[in-house]
Amino acid sequence: MKGSLFVVSAPSGAGKTSLVAKLIEKDPAIVVSISSTTRDKRPGEENGVNYHFLSVDEFQQRIEQGDFLEHAQVFDNFYGTSKSSVEKQLGAGKDVILEIDWQGAQQVRKLMPETISIFILPPSKQELRRRLTGRGTDSEEIIERRMADAESEMSHYAEFDYIVINNNFDIALEELNSIFKAQRLTQQRQYSSHKNLIHGLFEN
Amino acid sequence: MKGSLFVVSAPSGAGKTSLVAKLIEKDPAIVVSISSTTRDKRPGEENGVNYHFLSVDEFQQRIEQGDFLEHAQVFDNFYGTSKSSVEKQLGAGKDVILEIDWQGAQQVRKLMPETISIFILPPSKQELRRRLTGRGTDSEEIIERRMADAESEMSHYAEFDYIVINNNFDIALEELNSIFKAQRLTQQRQYSSHKNLIHGLFEN
Repeated sequence: MKGSLFVVSAPSGAGKTSLVAKLIEKDPAIVVSISSTTRDKRPGEENGVNYHFLSVDEFQQRIEQGDFLEHAQVFDNFYGTSKSSVEKQLGAGKDVILEIDWQGAQQVRKLMPETISIFILPPSKQELRRRLTGRGTDSEEIIERRMADAESEMSHYAEFDYIVINNNFDIALEELNSIFKAQRLTQQRQYSSHKNLIHGLFEN
Repeated sequence: MKGSLFVVSAPSGAGKTSLVAKLIEKDPAIVVSISSTTRDKRPGEENGVNYHFLSVDEFQQRIEQGDFLEHAQVFDNFYGTSKSSVEKQLGAGKDVILEIDWQGAQQVRKLMPETISIFILPPSKQELRRRLTGRGTDSEEIIERRMADAESEMSHYAEFDYIVINNNFDIALEELNSIFKAQRLTQQRQYSSHKNLIHGLFEN
């Protein structure tokens, strides 16, 4: 594998999606893995772009074949990350990001222990509530539910290798970026990127 | 320990000293450990600034007390890194750099396995020779000896966690910097730096 696999998890409201979108915009060697799902395609969505859309039968078959690095059922729909598609991108030298929750992260760590996992936290509970309140059109009950879900997700932060606190977007983006940059400097990655240069240092 | 311990090794000619000097100039939270030595103080050198100058007896006593993270004899002089002085700096939240060779790095790894080790490589053998040739006043024999020493040091690159290739100084500096930045984002470091913020996320 020439690229590295990263898991990025966060509660809603931490800013994960915006950070990851900006990160891959700045660095074409980083890609976000496209998930597979059995849910219906929505207007404007494309197969292989937004998701790999599969029938329930196809999805079940791939589970049995062991092709999912992680998968989960959300209400009546299945979602998962195809191992073969991730490995193809890693083999092409891409750093691949999986945007999944703590449960998915646990599954991926078991199958690929070399995965680097990053958790994004909001700067405070007040700020998280502000972000989850949105345009103020939702009921207090819905907001409380979102806060409880966020807290439940956040309670798993300590299972992750790195923590980025998203207080200031630009700083958080740069921090996220430095994790990816440092990973490319690990001995294994440098050897794989600069094999000829390194061998050349020892040639007569 | 609030800071992290880093070992930076390189053959002569790789640019280690200039890179580390610029790195600590840019970031006051990174310091270079001051070595202890039994060699004579040279004009302009200060005790506790350039080195901790010790007598041979004092040095031997500290070896017996187990106060050295690493030490070595070079000709008639001893050089070493005091464990207690490094731990004091780490406890004050500093990231501490040891500029030592591969043998010192091996000793430090044994005593403090959490140490992050970085090896700096030159971009090619030709460029290394050019850098080791200096002002052209040294004999071919001396230059060949330097090349042999450099190659012997470089042969240990694979024992290090990270590799920085110093082709362009500014790029190498930024790469070095990203390793230190990423290390501060590890879960343990972030927890230690932002304990109150993190606990606040789970308070009612």
